[in-house]
Amino acid sequence: MKESGRKLGALSPCAACKLLRRRCAQDCMFAPYFPADEPQKFASVHKVFGASNVNKMLQELPEHQRSDAVSSMVYEANARVRDPVYGCVGAISSLQKQIDSLQTQLAIAQAEVVHMRVRQFTSSSNPGVMDMAVDQATMGESLWSC
Amino acid sequence: MKESGRKLGALSPCAACKLLRRRCAQDCMFAPYFPADEPQKFASVHKVFGASNVNKMLQELPEHQRSDAVSSMVYEANARVRDPVYGCVGAISSLQKQIDSLQTQLAIAQAEVVHMRVRQFTSSSNPGVMDMAVDQATMGESLWSC
Repeated sequence: MKESGRKLGALSPCAACKLLRRRCAQDCMFAPYFPADEPQKFASVHKVFGASNVNKMLQELPEHQRSDAVSSMVYEANARVRDPVYGCVGAISSLQKQIDSLQTQLAIAQAEVVHMRVRQFTSSSNPGVMDMAVDQATMGESLWSC
Repeated sequence: MKESGRKLGALSPCAACKLLRRRCAQDCMFAPYFPADEPQKFASVHKVFGASNVNKMLQELPEHQRSDAVSSMVYEANARVRDPVYGCVGAISSLQKQIDSLQTQLAIAQAEVVHMRVRQFTSSSNPGVMDMAVDQATMGESLWSC
């Protein structure tokens, strides 16, 4: 009968146990989330959070949420490895700036729509007043230059 | 001569040394960033990253960047304490969704502006031809594609 390396324990340790140089038990907390063929995942998480903290955090969660928790920790750890000063918070700050800029552009575009609707309504109510010449200069200046 | 508690060492340990129940040395790596009157800052960071990892990460940075690194780690740790599954990544995902929605709204508003400008321009050039079809192809090519 052939059993998989995982089941036999030390034969095929998960990436965590391999890095930590320990026997990979059958009920290893890390094994389902850190397969041996993706060693970098655990390396980053271990460097940033520490294996013991990761283990503790996972144990405090119900099993069905652990996979998402590992994914978010790996993402966060990679961000911290890439940017040791700001980590994930750098991305949050940059997204927040992008939102501010989009909100400004949206407010301008929406104001323009309202303005044009009012003009259109006024001119259709007073067909004689066709001197609402389109200001070519206005058309040229981009509201949404970005 | 009166010296401050910090300088005398153990008398007034920083929040980190207090939590770790150790003597707060004069050159304590944590003391400048984790004052005794803000114990929660270190508690979160310690719970999520571990004191030893925080110490290591700070030591790898030049001094002028350490304060920003601590702020971002505290932010990240608090996010993980509040949301143990997604942490900061939850905020990133929600901001990303907000950006997608704003981009859609902006594209709609901008298309409306173009549509109205073309109509306005057409009606002022050919006052009789109010329902002149807007050239969809022209509208399609975005002036402000960015």
